[in-house]
This record gives sequence, C-alpha cells and structure tokens, in this order.
Amino acid sequence: MDVLKLLNQVRSGEVEVAEAAGLLKKLPYEELGFAKLDHHRELRRGCGEVVFCPGKAPQHLVAIFRRFHEQGSRVMGTRASEEQAGLVREAIPSAAYDPLSRIIRVGEFPAGDGNIAVCTGGTADIPVAEEAAQSAEFFGSHVTRIYDVGVAGIHRLLAKLDAIRAANAVIAVAGMEGALAGVVAGLVDKPVIAVPTSVGYGASFQGLAPLLTMLNSCAEGVAVVNIDNGFGAASIAHQINHLAAAPGRE
Amino acid sequence: MDVLKLLNQVRSGEVEVAEAAGLLKKLPYEELGFAKLDHHRELRRGCGEVVFCPGKAPQHLVAIFRRFHEQGSRVMGTRASEEQAGLVREAIPSAAYDPLSRIIRVGEFPAGDGNIAVCTGGTADIPVAEEAAQSAEFFGSHVTRIYDVGVAGIHRLLAKLDAIRAANAVIAVAGMEGALAGVVAGLVDKPVIAVPTSVGYGASFQGLAPLLTMLNSCAEGVAVVNIDNGFGAASIAHQINHLAAAPGRE
Amino acid sequence: MDVLKLLNQVRSGEVEVAEAAGLLKKLPYEELGFAKLDHHRELRRGCGEVVFCPGKAPQHLVAIFRRFHEQGSRVMGTRASEEQAGLVREAIPSAAYDPLSRIIRVGEFPAGDGNIAVCTGGTADIPVAEEAAQSAEFFGSHVTRIYDVGVAGIHRLLAKLDAIRAANAVIAVAGMEGALAGVVAGLVDKPVIAVPTSVGYGASFQGLAPLLTMLNSCAEGVAVVNIDNGFGAASIAHQINHLAAAPGRE
Amino acid sequence: MDVLKLLNQVRSGEVEVAEAAGLLKKLPYEELGFAKLDHHRELRRGCGEVVFCPGKAPQHLVAIFRRFHEQGSRVMGTRASEEQAGLVREAIPSAAYDPLSRIIRVGEFPAGDGNIAVCTGGTADIPVAEEAAQSAEFFGSHVTRIYDVGVAGIHRLLAKLDAIRAANAVIAVAGMEGALAGVVAGLVDKPVIAVPTSVGYGASFQGLAPLLTMLNSCAEGVAVVNIDNGFGAASIAHQINHLAAAPGRE
Amino acid sequence: MDVLKLLNQVRSGEVEVAEAAGLLKKLPYEELGFAKLDHHRELRRGCGEVVFCPGKAPQHLVAIFRRFHEQGSRVMGTRASEEQAGLVREAIPSAAYDPLSRIIRVGEFPAGDGNIAVCTGGTADIPVAEEAAQSAEFFGSHVTRIYDVGVAGIHRLLAKLDAIRAANAVIAVAGMEGALAGVVAGLVDKPVIAVPTSVGYGASFQGLAPLLTMLNSCAEGVAVVNIDNGFGAASIAHQINHLAAAPGRE
Amino acid sequence: MDVLKLLNQVRSGEVEVAEAAGLLKKLPYEELGFAKLDHHRELRRGCGEVVFCPGKAPQHLVAIFRRFHEQGSRVMGTRASEEQAGLVREAIPSAAYDPLSRIIRVGEFPAGDGNIAVCTGGTADIPVAEEAAQSAEFFGSHVTRIYDVGVAGIHRLLAKLDAIRAANAVIAVAGMEGALAGVVAGLVDKPVIAVPTSVGYGASFQGLAPLLTMLNSCAEGVAVVNIDNGFGAASIAHQINHLAAAPGRE
Amino acid sequence: MDVLKLLNQVRSGEVEVAEAAGLLKKLPYEELGFAKLDHHRELRRGCGEVVFCPGKAPQHLVAIFRRFHEQGSRVMGTRASEEQAGLVREAIPSAAYDPLSRIIRVGEFPAGDGNIAVCTGGTADIPVAEEAAQSAEFFGSHVTRIYDVGVAGIHRLLAKLDAIRAANAVIAVAGMEGALAGVVAGLVDKPVIAVPTSVGYGASFQGLAPLLTMLNSCAEGVAVVNIDNGFGAASIAHQINHLAAAPGRE
Amino acid sequence: MDVLKLLNQVRSGEVEVAEAAGLLKKLPYEELGFAKLDHHRELRRGCGEVVFCPGKAPQHLVAIFRRFHEQGSRVMGTRASEEQAGLVREAIPSAAYDPLSRIIRVGEFPAGDGNIAVCTGGTADIPVAEEAAQSAEFFGSHVTRIYDVGVAGIHRLLAKLDAIRAANAVIAVAGMEGALAGVVAGLVDKPVIAVPTSVGYGASFQGLAPLLTMLNSCAEGVAVVNIDNGFGAASIAHQINHLAAAPGRE
Repeated sequence: MDVLKLLNQVRSGEVEVAEAAGLLKKLPYEELGFAKLDHHRELRRGCGEVVFCPGKAPQHLVAIFRRFHEQGSRVMGTRASEEQAGLVREAIPSAAYDPLSRIIRVGEFPAGDGNIAVCTGGTADIPVAEEAAQSAEFFGSHVTRIYDVGVAGIHRLLAKLDAIRAANAVIAVAGMEGALAGVVAGLVDKPVIAVPTSVGYGASFQGLAPLLTMLNSCAEGVAVVNIDNGFGAASIAHQINHLAAAPGRE
Repeated sequence: MDVLKLLNQVRSGEVEVAEAAGLLKKLPYEELGFAKLDHHRELRRGCGEVVFCPGKAPQHLVAIFRRFHEQGSRVMGTRASEEQAGLVREAIPSAAYDPLSRIIRVGEFPAGDGNIAVCTGGTADIPVAEEAAQSAEFFGSHVTRIYDVGVAGIHRLLAKLDAIRAANAVIAVAGMEGALAGVVAGLVDKPVIAVPTSVGYGASFQGLAPLLTMLNSCAEGVAVVNIDNGFGAASIAHQINHLAAAPGRE
Repeated sequence: MDVLKLLNQVRSGEVEVAEAAGLLKKLPYEELGFAKLDHHRELRRGCGEVVFCPGKAPQHLVAIFRRFHEQGSRVMGTRASEEQAGLVREAIPSAAYDPLSRIIRVGEFPAGDGNIAVCTGGTADIPVAEEAAQSAEFFGSHVTRIYDVGVAGIHRLLAKLDAIRAANAVIAVAGMEGALAGVVAGLVDKPVIAVPTSVGYGASFQGLAPLLTMLNSCAEGVAVVNIDNGFGAASIAHQINHLAAAPGRE
Repeated sequence: MDVLKLLNQVRSGEVEVAEAAGLLKKLPYEELGFAKLDHHRELRRGCGEVVFCPGKAPQHLVAIFRRFHEQGSRVMGTRASEEQAGLVREAIPSAAYDPLSRIIRVGEFPAGDGNIAVCTGGTADIPVAEEAAQSAEFFGSHVTRIYDVGVAGIHRLLAKLDAIRAANAVIAVAGMEGALAGVVAGLVDKPVIAVPTSVGYGASFQGLAPLLTMLNSCAEGVAVVNIDNGFGAASIAHQINHLAAAPGRE
Repeated sequence: MDVLKLLNQVRSGEVEVAEAAGLLKKLPYEELGFAKLDHHRELRRGCGEVVFCPGKAPQHLVAIFRRFHEQGSRVMGTRASEEQAGLVREAIPSAAYDPLSRIIRVGEFPAGDGNIAVCTGGTADIPVAEEAAQSAEFFGSHVTRIYDVGVAGIHRLLAKLDAIRAANAVIAVAGMEGALAGVVAGLVDKPVIAVPTSVGYGASFQGLAPLLTMLNSCAEGVAVVNIDNGFGAASIAHQINHLAAAPGRE
Repeated sequence: MDVLKLLNQVRSGEVEVAEAAGLLKKLPYEELGFAKLDHHRELRRGCGEVVFCPGKAPQHLVAIFRRFHEQGSRVMGTRASEEQAGLVREAIPSAAYDPLSRIIRVGEFPAGDGNIAVCTGGTADIPVAEEAAQSAEFFGSHVTRIYDVGVAGIHRLLAKLDAIRAANAVIAVAGMEGALAGVVAGLVDKPVIAVPTSVGYGASFQGLAPLLTMLNSCAEGVAVVNIDNGFGAASIAHQINHLAAAPGRE
Repeated sequence: MDVLKLLNQVRSGEVEVAEAAGLLKKLPYEELGFAKLDHHRELRRGCGEVVFCPGKAPQHLVAIFRRFHEQGSRVMGTRASEEQAGLVREAIPSAAYDPLSRIIRVGEFPAGDGNIAVCTGGTADIPVAEEAAQSAEFFGSHVTRIYDVGVAGIHRLLAKLDAIRAANAVIAVAGMEGALAGVVAGLVDKPVIAVPTSVGYGASFQGLAPLLTMLNSCAEGVAVVNIDNGFGAASIAHQINHLAAAPGRE
Repeated sequence: MDVLKLLNQVRSGEVEVAEAAGLLKKLPYEELGFAKLDHHRELRRGCGEVVFCPGKAPQHLVAIFRRFHEQGSRVMGTRASEEQAGLVREAIPSAAYDPLSRIIRVGEFPAGDGNIAVCTGGTADIPVAEEAAQSAEFFGSHVTRIYDVGVAGIHRLLAKLDAIRAANAVIAVAGMEGALAGVVAGLVDKPVIAVPTSVGYGASFQGLAPLLTMLNSCAEGVAVVNIDNGFGAASIAHQINHLAAAPGRE
C-alpha cells in the first residue's frame, strides 16, 4: 500500500476518513512507507544481504540464495558447512566458498574504501579473523590483515604499528588470554572492536577468559562483540569506517 | 633528551658513536622521540586528561589535579566520591562536581561537534548514562540525551528514532534484561556502543544478565563495554563521532 | 495530534497530502492513535500504577506519587525503604506502608475476584510472598495465603491441598532448595508461578539454587520469575486469575 | 482396597475397629481413595499421556506406547529420536512422527479451543516452538504460529500484534539475546511464557544468556521455563488457555 | 479428630459409612494418626527442637522459645545474633548463648553416647565447627574436637589419627582449599561428613572452592553439606553415631 | 624392614643406636608397621578391591583384574565400557558385566546384611542408582531398590515410606530438580546420601541444578556426593549400614 | 620424647623392645625426630614466622605475637586491621605497622640477597604489591619495585625492562584485564608469579577476569596465585630467588 | 639495519641527521638491535623451539618442522594428534612421537642438569605429567617421575618425600579434588608448580574444581598454571631449576 495514494484518495473522497484511519492503524509498518525504515533497509541492501547458515534446512538455504541471486543481489552466508556450500554451489555455480572463513559468497567484492585493520593474536585465530575481514570486504571496506602479533612477543606488534594506525577502525581477534585488544588500544587512537575467540583450553572456558579480559581493558577505545563473532565485529567496524571514509555521503 | 640534538652531537664529533648507540638503547621510549607515541599522547592530551578516582589516596588525587590545573590542562575525574570532590574543590575552587555522574571537572567543556545519542532503558540507568554523556562532552562531542526508552514500552523508543538516527554513534545504557541495545541497532544503521548496568536484582547477577544479552544481540552494529562503564563507552563513541565529524582532520 | 482530525483536514483540503504524509511519518506512535496501545495502557491504568522505588531520587519519587494521587489514580510503590515511605507519607498522609512487603500504597485495595494461592516454603520467604500477595490484591485479585508449607515436612503441604486447588493460579515462593514449586505443581492442576528467594546461605548463591531447581521442575505447569520478584509473579498470576475469573470481560 | 467396603465391614462387625484403624494407616495413599489425587490424574489423562523419550530403553519405550494404545489412550512422546520413532511406528503403524518437533503421536489432535500464540525470534527457534505448539494442540488448545519476529527487526513483530493479542496466552521462544519475551509482554496484556533456546554461540553459553534476559524482563506478565523446554511452556500455557476458554468447566 | 472414635461411631451406626469415608479423605494427615509420622516427630522431639534464627522477627523468636520452654522441651537456636540472644535471655534467664557458635540453648546437654570427631583445617573454621559440635552434643552425641589439623602441615593430622579413628563419624570442616575431608577419609574407614566453609578470599568464591574440592574427593566415604552448614553436618553425623552406638534401640 | 627386628638388633648391639635412629627416620611409613594403616587397608580389602576404569590403558586394566583374580580377591570395576568389559572377560571368563550400571565384577556378591534403600526420582536415574546399589551389594550391604518415586507425583513416594524407613541409610538419586533427597529426609529419620545426576537438559547444567538443590536441602540428615557418583554414595552408605548392622564387630 | 634416648634405653635393656616398638608407633610425628620435617620447620623459622590475622580473636592474636617476640623470633602478620595493629603495638611497642600493605612486623628486615622485581599494572594494585614486596623482604629477598607499568601504555613497561630482567623472579600484580603478567613473561626469561587483584568493577567479577587472563597466558614462564594474594606470591618468589642467589647453601 | 653503522654514517656525513632520526623512528624494534631482546630470543632458541600443534594446517605444521630441522634446531610439538605426528614423521623420519604425552620431537634430549620432581595424584593424570616431564627434559632439566601419590592414600606420598625434596622444583599434577599440590607444598620447601587436570567428572567441571583447590592452597610456595597445561608448568619449572642448578651461568 502507498500512503500518498491513500491520502490522495482521502482528498478525492474516494476513501472515507474513518476507513483511512483504520487502514493506517493496521498496515504492516513497512507498508506504511516509513521512509527511514525503508531507507535503512535500502542502505543495508546496498551492503548486500547476509544469511546465518547454521541450522537452516538445505532446501530453505538454497531457496534463499537463489532468490537473492535471481534479484541480482549480492549475498553472503556465514558459518556455512562444506556440505551447505556444496548445495548452494550446485544451484548457483558462480558462488564462491572459503573453507577457512566458512563464508559462501554470491557476487563480487565491491571496491573497498577506507581501511580496517584486522589483527590476530595467533594463527589459530585466523578463521575468525577471516570471517571478519571478508565480511567487511563484502560490505565495501578495504581491509589490512595483520596476523600473529600476540602480546607474548610484543615486538611483533610494535613493528606493525604504522599499518594499524593507518586504519579507521581496528578489529582485534584473540583467544587464550585475549590481551591483544587492550595493548593495541593503548597504542592506537582509533576504535578497537575486540573479538574473543574460543581458541584455548582449560580455564579459557570456551572463550570466557578473553571475553572478560577484553571487557576489562584499561585502555580507552575498546568495545567487544560475542565470542568468535567475526561477522559482528565486521558489521560495526564497517559502519565506523564508512562514517570516517565518506561522512558526507550519508 | 633530544634525538636530533644527539645526532647533531654525533655529527660534530661531540659524542662518540658507541656512546650514542648506548644512549639510544637505554632511553625511555618516550624520550627517544617516537613521533607516533608522542603524537598519540598529544592527541589524547588534546582531549583533556582523565583520572580514575577510586582507591587513590587523597594527597595523590589532589596533587594530580593540581599539577594538570597548573599546566593549564583540562582534567576530569571519574567515579569520584563526594569526599574526594570536596578535597579537590578545596584545592581548586573552580572545579565542578556532579553527584549524579560522580565526575569532577576542571576546565570548561569544549564546543562539541558531531553528535552522540545517549539512550537509557530506565531512569535508574541515568547515572551511568551521565558518566558517558559528560565524558563525551569533555572529549569534545555533542551529546543528545534520550532517557527512559526501554523496550518494555517500545513505543517510547520508536517515538525518538529520528533523534537517535541523527547521531554518528549511539550509546545504549540498560540494566535488567538489557534488550535496548539490540532493538536500537535493529532500527538505526549507526554504531551502537552497549553499556550493561548493574541496575536490577536477583538473576541480573550484578549486570551479568544485560551483559550477556548485549553480547548476543542479533542485530548488526553492536559492541559492548564493561558493566557500568559509561566512561569506556564515551571513549570509543567519541572516537567514532570524531572520525565521522572531522575525518580529514586526523 | 489526532489522526481523524488530520484525515478530515486532508479531505477538506486544509492540509496538503504531502504535508499529511510527512506528519504521519514523524508522529510519536502514541499520538498516531494506535487504539490497542492506548487500550493496553488503559487496561493497565485500570489496575493502578506501580512504581519501582529503589534508586529513585527522593524528589522524583515524591513527585511521581503526588502526580498520580492528584489525578485520582491508585498507585503502589515496590521495594520502598522506610525512608522513602516517610517522604511519600509526608506528601500524601493517606499513603500506607507495610514494612514487611516494603510496599507503599495510595488508594484502597479493590474488591478482589477470582483467587490466587500464595504459598511459601518457610517463614523467611514471607516478605517476598507479601510483595506478591499485596501486589495481586492491588491489581484486583483475591488472595489466599498459605505460608510455611515447605517440602521438608510434606504433610504440612498435603494438609492444605484443598485450599491451594481452589485457586486459579498458585504463586510458590521458596528459597534454599526451592522444591516447593515442583511438588505443588505435581499435586495441583493449575498454573504455578515459581518465585525463588535469596533466603539461604552458602551454596544457595543468593537464590541461584532455588532458581535452577524451579526451572528444572519435572512437574507440568510451572514457570519461573526472577529471584525475590514477588511483584513479577503477581503480575502474571493476576493476568491468569483475571482470565479465569472474568474471561468474557476482556 | 476399598474404603467404603472396609467401613461397611466395620459397620457390620465383620472387621474389628482396631484392625480397621491399622489397615487405614498402612494403605498406600492412592488406595485410600483420595478423590482429589484421582480426580487430578483423571484430568491429566483427559489431556492424553506424555512420555519423555530420551534415555528410555527401546523395549520400555515401545511397551509404554503399546499399553496406552491398547487402552485407547492418546499418547505423545517428546524428544524422540528418528530411531525411537521407527521402533514405535513398527509396533503402532498409526503413530505419527514429526522430525522437526521430535514428537511421536498416537491418536488425533482434539478440536482445540481458546488460543495460544507461539512466537519465535528466529527460524532456528522453530523446532522448540513446534514442540510447544504441537504439545499444546495435543492437550486441546488452538495454536497460532507467529515465527521469525525477533526484536532485531521490530517492525516484523509490530505487524503481528493483533494476532498475538487475540490469544489467551503467548509462548515466546527465543535464543541469542532472548529479548522477544520482554518486548511482547510490553505490548500485550496476556500472560507470556518465555522459552529460552540454546540457539546461539559463544557467550550464549548454551542458552544461559536468553534465560537471564527473560528472567530479568522489565515488562509485566512474563514467566520463564527451562532452556529449550517447549513442552513445559505448552503445559502451563494450555492450563491458562483452558482456564480462560472454559473457566466454568473446571 | 480421633480415628478410633470415628470407627467406633461407624460400628455403632452413629456415623454413616459415606460420611465417615468423606471425613477420612479430608483429614489433615497429622490428624489421621499416621503412626510413623508421629513416631518420627516424637523421635525428633526427643532430640530437642531446633530454630533457625536469621530473619525471624524478634517477637516471633521470643514466642517460639518461650512456648518450648513452657512445655519443658529443650530448644536450641542456630545462627543467633547477639541481639537475638539478648532478647531470648531476657525472656528465659536460664538460656545460654555462645557467641562463637552463635547458638542459643535452653535446657542442658544430654549425656552423650557414641563419639563424633569434629576436625578443622584452621582456626578460622572453628565457629562453624562449634556449631556442628554443640548441635551434635545437643542431639545427644559425644564429641571429640580436633582443631587446626589442616593438610598444609600433614603431620599435625597424622598425630591425631587414633582419636579420629575412635569416632563413629567424622565431621571435617575446612575452608580455602578444603582438602582436609579427602585426606581424612583416606586415613579413616568411617563416614566423613565434609563441611566447606566460606573462610578464605579471592578464588575461594565464598566457599565454592572447598565445596568443589570436597565433592570431588577421591577417597571413599565422604559426603558433603552446604557451605558453613555445621548444623546440617551435625544432624546426619548424629544419625550415624546414633545408629552405631545404639543400633538395637531404634 | 621390621621394626621389632631392628630394636632387637639394637638391644643385642648388632646395630648402633645412631644407625638405628637414621634408619627409623628414613623408613617408608608403611614399612614402619603402622598398624592402623595396615589394618585400614585390610578392612578395605575385606570389602573387595574397586577399580575406576575410565582412561585406563587396556593392558593395564586387564593386568589389574588378573592380579586380583589370581590372588583370590573379589574385584569390581566401575564405569567400564563394553569394550573394556570384553577385554576383561576374555582374560577372566567368570567376570560379569552389567551394561546398565557399567560395573565389571569378578567374584560373587557376599551375603548382605543390614539394609540400604536406593531411591530414584525417575527412570533415567536408574543407571546411577544401579552403580550405587551393586557397589553397596559388592561391599556386603543388603539393598532395597525403590525407583521412579520423584516428587512430581508425591503419592508414589509416600506409598513406599515403610520400605524406605526400614533401611539404615537411604541413597536418593535424582536429576533435573533433584528435590527427592530433601523430601525423603523430611519423612525418614535416617541418613540420606544424595546423588545428583546429570539427567536433564538446559538449565540443569549437567547436574549443577540438582547438586545445588541437594546441598540446600532444608531437611535434616542429608549429605551429598558428586554428580552421577553412585559408587561414592555406596561407599559411605555401606559404612553407615555396616556401623548400624554390626556395630560391635569393628 | 627423644628417639636417641629411647634407643639407648633399648640398648641398655632399660626399655623392652616391645614397649619401644609401641612407643615409636604412637609418637606424634614431630616427636619422632623426622629430620626433614624438623629441618623444614627450621628453615621456615629461619624466615621468621607469619600470622594470617583476619578472624583471629584479639587476645589470641596478641598472645601469638607475644610468644614469638619473647622467643626472640621475628614475626609478621598479614591483612591486619588498624585495630589489630593497635593491640599488638600496645603489647609490643617495637612492632611496626604499614597501613598500605596491612602488615604488622616485629623484628627487622634481614639484609636481602638476590633480587625480586615486583611490578603493578596500576596504582590501585599497590597495596597487594606491597604485601608481596614486604613479605619477600621479611623472608630475606631484595626487592625492586616497578609500579604502574600496565599494558594500556606499553612504553612505560618497555622503559623498565632492564630493571625487571635483572631480577631472579618477577611478581606481576594486576587487576582489571590482568594482561601485565603475560606481556612481562614474553619479554623476560625469568619465572613470573602472577597475582590477579580484585581491583576493577563490573565484569572483573572481583578478580575473576585477571585470574583467567593470567592462567591463559600464551607466554612461557607464568604461574598464578590466588586473587589479591601478595603474600603467596612472595612465598614462592622468595623460594626461587633463594635457590638462584644461594643454590649451594641449601 | 645496523645502528652502529648508521651512527658512523651520521658521523661521516654520509647520512643526514634528519634522515637518521626518521630511520630510527621507523625501524622495527628487532632491527634497532636491542641487545636484550635478541639475547632473550637466543636464550630461548638455546632451549629448542616449541610448536603448539592443535589447529595448525597440515602443510604449515610440516613446513615449520622442516625449517627448524634444516637449520639444525631441535624442535618439539605439543598436543600433536597421531595424524599430525604421521605427517611430520613422513617429512622427517628421525622425528619421535609419544602418544601418551602427544609430543613430537626432532632432535635428542640434552643431558639434563638440576632436578625437577613431577608428581601425579592418579594414573589418569599421567598424560599431562608426561607432557610436563618431557618438555622439561627437552629444555634441559633432569626429571624425577613420582606418579600415583594422591592424598586419598597419604602414606604413598610420605614414602616418596626424600625424592621430592631432592628436586629444585616440583610439578604437582592432579585432577578431581586437586589436593596434591597443597599437601606437597606443606611438606617440601621448594617451589611447587600446580597443574590441575580435567580428569574427573560431575562437579569437577572440566578441571575447575582442582584449579580452585590449588589457587586456594593454604601451604606456602604454590603457584598454578592452566588446566592440563603440562607444558606451561615445565616452562616455569625449568626456569627455576636452571636458576638453581646454574645460577652463575645466566
């Protein structure tokens, strides 16, 4: 339904006032034409669609990808199993799958602008970091990868400071003790999005240890997302990078 | 010590090469003149200094404030007790204290630019929100306060969406169930910094409940700081707002 | 603003279609006249207003009570301290305060209909039970109190089964091991709202033990509210009792 | 033993008073003929029998289903594996199995009365929601399914409010942040039974996060059941719906 | 009501059979004269009555003690504050109060039989140990106190083995690491009732550490009561000692 | 080494005093002939040997069983897998294995004396209960099994009270809410050893819920062992039963 | 009793062999003259005695200090309140009390050898660090204090590396995120004893966050003591320093 | 780059002062020639390299081992699966793999000096103990293995005290209740590194129970590493042993 059309019909007497009031109250919000909601969706759509794959029934997953593909939308699936990726690629041969990040992607990466630095403490954190990096690239951010710069060998990190400082936002991915985020934030005056990973054992308690470390960071400029949630970090880091790279565009 | 001066002395033969190498190795890093570290500190100093007051001995606290005041620096103390505020104001009569946010401030708020929206779920979250808001203002951000818009009465929040969407970053402060951050992020395409508060009782477990809620938010664009950490939220929100409001300036 | 009036103005040409569309988008929802929202608020108001007192500034608390009192509304405050009660009673001499339930009340209890049974495991659970019982009475339910019938002496409970079964809903309040709710639900085929209390020590962990007990109840017909949340139990138990006692009325 | 017969024997002198007193003390309670206990069981039996399948030995499980089937009772098994379902269907070919809800059912659904709304935050919550919905239908309630209305896109939920408000009770099923229950309860003045699900990852801690969210809900009229416990939610929601739909019948 | 009298009335025709059946169903259980329940209560009463003091209103506490005292019953109150003790002693001058164990006692300790060894890891565990020891003595057990024999100096414990082995049951009270119970059980072939205490700091988490230690004991013959629950340990240890000391008596 | 022989050698001058003092200091404790340690081991050996099977290498496990078997000792293995049982039975054809309790046994059960009642809340608790029951029988206690008497249908439990009261000790095995132990202890004046099981789901947290329930039991006479630790419960219950059944024998 | 004397009496026939054997078995271990135990105690005594003050009754505390003082022993009390210190100083005017570390000391610090570096993350960690430093000095270690070198400003730490590397052992004291220990261990090849402090708020959970951080340190050479346990860190660091500084002495 | 060369170039005028200052600022830290950092790496390299195997991609793992092998370095991999070991041994036939400790080793063990005692509570702790023992041997420490001396049979431990006391450091490995570390530390005046293991079940919570036990040890001289972290214990124990065995060498 179209609000303008309805109001014109009210003006013209085609629709009664009482009837119009009733229609307005019952409309699904998206049908009310709330510009900001739509605009908001438009913006998101501009970023491409994202599908969280785990638990989706095979036929549903394929159908979702097919629908977006047919509409010409770029679409990305996170945490896809090899099996799910196979099904999607059967339906859409141009789909790409990266077993490291577990991302299925239909459509090319846009030319990225701005810059997000994605850092990891160790090599075992790379799958989560790649989920973050590729998601940010999918949204349209340029990404600099700086891996294996954990605080147990602080000189490795110090050697990369220029590259990190050149970014608009930093994603710091670390398991075990998770100290990377706080140390980076102490050295770099840009927003640091911290991603604890479940990498570790024993008293890591599946990522609880680095989660608490990051939440208790003494340095200014750190905020934290869920354990292993590379995609979530990319979402907010891209928003920040986008604001910094193209503030007038919004 | 001055690196340039030292190198000039090496050039002129005033200082031996071996001696210079020794001095370079032993210098405290800040004295080595690492531009980025200094620049970094400078930038921060531009924001004014911040002192975490709890546990500071009275004489130390007063001395710190006095030193910054004498240098002409603006300085702010967080989580200051009434007693601590009294001591500082005795030493520096121009110091201002707000018992709600528990912030002591020496020096005026700068003219803020950009815009950060600070929202709360309930009225009991306001002290934490004011710590966030006043800290952001102290750093130089403009702040819009939108209080008591918790999700138990969702229409209160919906009525304020325009104001929230106008900001470069949102700080969502909520205790009890902590759902505010996720709902706002679903409605607003800007970075949302979520602050769980210890407001609540029983199975809130001193803020654990809203902390977990916020970390598990399904909406894109949410990152979380420590329980009751209004200052931490302000730090990163200000960085974001600063990037968006004046990206070329950096 | 009044939607009907606006639509009439559109009809009459007094307001342009485009202008009307703009106004509709910006209206606070409550001003859009969404009948159900309003009706919903009306219903609640019919139950009297409820104020959560902890953390409220004295002047705010008194102002809230005064406003409702001046409007002729019944109003109740939960978890009020003796000091808060004193302030309210200074402003509104007719206000009543019960130090056991910590409820301040302005206005009489309505004649209750239906029946809610409020049971406790021990005598130390009575303050929470009274918060539940008096809240339910304030909403308009009749309440039967059955205290100190914990499962360590199961015959005490069995002796009261008729009274419990006569209610439309049961509120089972228990600390320590919290087994009361499950045992009652096994004996009574009515909804049981379980309230764990922080009564206990050691491995009760401030009510975690009875909370988990109640959530894991094997009996059918149990649902749980927050630790010590007598008011929350009363809210849902009253809704149930109201549905059972006057289903056609809604 | 039959109490009436015993008393008649006492009357006739066939049994001595002292002997009768001894027999009365030793009787198992169910043999004493406590009407309410029996009546209670009768009522439940009217709802059909329910079997919790996990951990049951195959021969026991089949025997239980066969016994109820031979008695002409309707019977339902929850959390049945495909393998268990196969065994039951071998013995009772008319048994139906739904792999989504994991419910085995022998006997038809009764014509439902009243109305329960079963809502989910996401699509991954549907298996738990179906356990709830089909259990409630088995007990004799009419169910309205409203899936995928999570708070990250609040407009989806708002568009369904009329349908939700038309129910006597709401079951709100949500994982991750679990905010659905509180938001619904703020919009609907009916009892909301909240079911946290283990859907999520990282700091969801297998459903702990939505469990705490729901227990801390600020809205009135929410009570919570165990993580993933769709059946438990159906039990109490059916009791409520039954009270509302047929209050005089009890 | 008296069952014998009722049956005699049935016999004589004074009461109709149907009426008698009705009366029998409604009787409170204790009035039915279930010998075992009564016997059970008698036995307990033989041990003297016990009152858990915390949270009791002053007038209630005094009334309870006075009632038992007037009936000639011995009575003991646990966890009594100095203030509560003062009130009781005002009413009953013969009442004794031990500030270490926080026990108020009215009536003498019986001559104890059998033997219970009460051991502590450190001196800070003695208040809990005294609650256990004095409770057991009040019930009628003889108690041997063996304090400050923690495992950090194992020779202290080894030197006392004969005394510990002479008891029918051992109560092992320990905070901090709580290893005492397992070490004792490895050395003594008698039931060990372990009492974790909240003595300690930091990662003791108010007694969680010794609680877990004791539950995970590798030695045979250990069972655990709640943190700081000296009374609970005494209850079961006395039952064991009583069985061992006077098995034919029961 | 033999202390008596050494002392005789000292007497005869064969060994010097200083040398003897040195030898005494270095002796392993068991070689000092500490009668109680030995006696203690003897007593245990009288109960038969027990082997905790999980994690044992196949060759070690078989060797242990073979050694005991060759010495004519009765020996029992707990938590044995089917595969481990197969290996043992290959080596010792007379070994018996019960897949329900997961116990391997070599040697007959002794004629049991006394009586231990083993109760369960549900049928899913039976494997743990059987580990307890068969362990107690192996130690020499008579066991009465009373299964599926959970508190959700309290009349089932009440009907079995005589049988439970006839025992010297009760083992109460329950998962989910775990209320069985407290209810039994309220009805029976004998020591109750509570065994929480990991049966349940969601907020049972692998047995944490019934563990806390049992530790917080309000009834007197309950002590708790580790989750699923049927063997541990049997160890202490057998000690108690043994003390009660044959107190003079020790 | 004196073992040598006993053996001489055996030699001379003054004591019978059997009697001597019985005496040897019954002796308290310390009286058996086990050289290592005694030597061990001697060594400790060489370090001076240490008393844990909290919970000690005033008269006991004073008596303990007085006894050691009269024997000429150095003695130190940890976690002493100002009140406790006052009592001790009344009895022993030469006792010294430091309100920062809360240590009471009787007797001088020995001349320290070796070197322990005590580092803190922030200024609020200093009380715990001083407990560690002064305890180590009391035991006889030389201590270098390096405070406020937290990782949020890594250059402060880097500037102090030479001093840290010069020590035989490092004590790293940090609250909040607790990353100091891991960063130090990555830079220094000496044993690092990590002390988490309860400094922090919110998700620090009274020191749980830095405790987990330190346990999960990726760097080699870190071990952890209890939260706030400066004394415990000093004990093991002194042992290490003592081994390194005077290895032949032992 | 070489700092000395640069300074010589400054002296000779070959490089301008400003250019030299710029180069100094940009150098990666390791290239600045900080002797201690390098020395530190050298020292470690002297111990051989260590690779944490889990999660490493097969080609990466093999490449790392090959590179070290080709350089003539000794190298060790921890927590290697059988499959990983097979791949490495295919590439380097001289590599050795121990399935118990899960260590792959290339190069011989050096002749160990000093002495570390590795103790376990039970046989199931041996895999973790072997990781510790073999790691320490790889670093160059001599190791004494003392297994299965848990506190449930304290005499087994007491019999081995001489061997334990002869070591410079003790590694105490224990699961379940984890009391071994504290008991050993009470008997031995050497640093005890405690390793909790995940051996156990139920309320062990995957090693949380022994972790807390060890952190709360009352004995002096205990510090703790992560659950199952045998390698971490070896790292610090080797450092201590190295300091004690060869203090002048450093």
